[in-house]
Amino acid sequence: MSTAWTSRYAARTKGLKSSTIRELLKLTQNPEVISFGGGLPANDVFPTERFKEACQRVLEQNLSQALQYGETEGYKPLREMIARHGTRYGINAQTENVLITTGSQQALDLIGKLLINAGDRILVEAPTYLGALQAFGVYGADYVSVPCDENGLRTDLLEPTLRSGPKFMYVLPNFQNPGGTTLTTERRSELVLLANKYGTPIVDDDPYGQLRYEGEHLPLLVLLDRVNMPRDSGYTLGNVIYLSSFSKTLSPGLRLGWIVAPREVIDKLVQLKQGADLHTSTFAQVVAYEVARENFLDEHVKKLRIVYRERRDIMLDALAQYFPPETTWTRPKGGLFLWVTLPQGMEATELLAEALKQNVAFVPGDSFYAPNGPTQDGSRHLRLNFSHALPAEIREGIRRLSVAIKKQLVASHS
Amino acid sequence: MSTAWTSRYAARTKGLKSSTIRELLKLTQNPEVISFGGGLPANDVFPTERFKEACQRVLEQNLSQALQYGETEGYKPLREMIARHGTRYGINAQTENVLITTGSQQALDLIGKLLINAGDRILVEAPTYLGALQAFGVYGADYVSVPCDENGLRTDLLEPTLRSGPKFMYVLPNFQNPGGTTLTTERRSELVLLANKYGTPIVDDDPYGQLRYEGEHLPLLVLLDRVNMPRDSGYTLGNVIYLSSFSKTLSPGLRLGWIVAPREVIDKLVQLKQGADLHTSTFAQVVAYEVARENFLDEHVKKLRIVYRERRDIMLDALAQYFPPETTWTRPKGGLFLWVTLPQGMEATELLAEALKQNVAFVPGDSFYAPNGPTQDGSRHLRLNFSHALPAEIREGIRRLSVAIKKQLVASHS
Repeated sequence: MSTAWTSRYAARTKGLKSSTIRELLKLTQNPEVISFGGGLPANDVFPTERFKEACQRVLEQNLSQALQYGETEGYKPLREMIARHGTRYGINAQTENVLITTGSQQALDLIGKLLINAGDRILVEAPTYLGALQAFGVYGADYVSVPCDENGLRTDLLEPTLRSGPKFMYVLPNFQNPGGTTLTTERRSELVLLANKYGTPIVDDDPYGQLRYEGEHLPLLVLLDRVNMPRDSGYTLGNVIYLSSFSKTLSPGLRLGWIVAPREVIDKLVQLKQGADLHTSTFAQVVAYEVARENFLDEHVKKLRIVYRERRDIMLDALAQYFPPETTWTRPKGGLFLWVTLPQGMEATELLAEALKQNVAFVPGDSFYAPNGPTQDGSRHLRLNFSHALPAEIREGIRRLSVAIKKQLVASHS
Repeated sequence: MSTAWTSRYAARTKGLKSSTIRELLKLTQNPEVISFGGGLPANDVFPTERFKEACQRVLEQNLSQALQYGETEGYKPLREMIARHGTRYGINAQTENVLITTGSQQALDLIGKLLINAGDRILVEAPTYLGALQAFGVYGADYVSVPCDENGLRTDLLEPTLRSGPKFMYVLPNFQNPGGTTLTTERRSELVLLANKYGTPIVDDDPYGQLRYEGEHLPLLVLLDRVNMPRDSGYTLGNVIYLSSFSKTLSPGLRLGWIVAPREVIDKLVQLKQGADLHTSTFAQVVAYEVARENFLDEHVKKLRIVYRERRDIMLDALAQYFPPETTWTRPKGGLFLWVTLPQGMEATELLAEALKQNVAFVPGDSFYAPNGPTQDGSRHLRLNFSHALPAEIREGIRRLSVAIKKQLVASHS
């Protein structure tokens, strides 16, 4: 019926396929399934009482503003709060350096739109966040991948790839999605030095940085980058665009992320955002501001750290208890994910079919590798989320998953 | 400092410039200025009491869902409501044909992303909605423009342009932005017939259709299109993609629009939306559903029609009273805008400078013409919004504007 349309799709939509994660999110609606699939925060720790108070304040004092059109840059008190918060970590941004986006996902889309010509090479980690691959892929990105180990991106392997002149590099230094790994301070410095040497800008995606469960906060790339700048350059984010989000600390349903970047870059991104959605929901922004203000968010994050650390530990314990000795996994210091490596010869996608029979879900590793790049045996990996399921479910889910793995192991040996 | 970025912008950002409307929206924050510039609904008729009740219900019953990730397609009860509502106008859409977008602006962006290869010609009205030009322009659209008169698009001039094979045509048949004109039934039929003859799909942008102040609702293009379809084709939106929005009927600050399209097209758009912002704010969607349900929105729209009709009439009266006889304007039957034609030799952008001195704002006409097309003397036009300012402000604003026009007239004759 609709060949009028289907024959007219733009070249950029070729190879477009549905995200495995999205399809898996649908499964989580079956209450029988324990899902380690999505990157969902816990339902049971949303600050619902505070939301009620905040909504009440907005409804009484500020509703007309919340319902009306707003500025493309975002709700000013929220941008000011983000700029202030950044100064704690050495991001000396002004309000003008902050653009509110419709989730971090939109930040990735706008960056792709701003920077990527079809065929441009983007340097990514292997594995990397699949939402970034989706966002950049639409603009015709090619990828060059550099592998990660348990200390994050292998900066010792970076130089040959930088020499080939990628348009920019996209990295997740804190509690990486999907690997759960954290880039060491030494590697951060090396990364920034090499980026400067080759003039390669950095997109630093940091949705999880606040969710650290052990150890010290490590310096942000933007801070290390500034060390290389002339002292009189004042505010500089010269080589780094920094992204973060309220999705993991407050609520993903609000769809609120942000970009911190040099003013000239923000100006261009604002123009692109006008065409993309005019602005992010004023209503969501005003409510988020009322929730987060007066250091509530800091207090709430402290609570999240306790809850998520416990769930991580329960998952690590259950893995040690149930999984066969041939499997290994990362031990994340924060964030929402850990990364399992299956025994040689096992396939994560085949395992998923068996796991779903056992009513447990995860995301197979190959989703997280750039197309046409080295997959680093992505087929042997799975990403497990430990933030969403309740402690008892985590234990039971890992048990079910171990049953599926053992069945597959037997099948592969027979 | 940031040449690392500025030297790397993609080709598609060339010629990107800030929207006049956006800059004008900023002026409206100066309380001295009476702005006819933006397309803002009235602050004083937002259904704030109903919003309070709805928020209360969400906070008590549904908050965790509202704060969590949701499906890319949108909140299902809201999509069902939109599908049901469409049946009244003969759009026999199923829930699966409805995609919720982050405002109608995102619908335009996703359609551009799906369909436009750089250099594709898109057929637009002259004048047309500038947000569409922004959204499509990023994907490298070229435009072919067909002029409008007081009855909307000049369908008698359409055929030669269709023969040149545009990728699709973008039209606003109801209370057009910026012209305020409505396409007659006869022209609608002719448009659909010609579109079928040349196989040119139609994007029908209808944010204002509910806001009719006089006369009968005219048949939607999708309905006329179906007449041309084989009887057994069941649900068909073969040749038309239909867009609408809650921005003018409920609240623009929620950023909620929607696309009704054939299932195959929706599937592709969903994949693109995943990469663009994952999904539209669940919080905004759940609240909007609770506000709109049980026919509240219909009742509210009846109220809006009364309020906006009065404001339109006040503006028309004030124009007749204050404006010099050499000026003319459209008499819209609905929507938010009317379109003024200045005397020969006057320039709307020069007038704006003088108008701002008089503390009144509008959008100059040239913003609404596709680049490199016939501008149809766009420089002599202004778009006036009559929905946002209060009645007394409308009268005073038109008086101020008439002062500015008379000053310019004197200057041009001297």
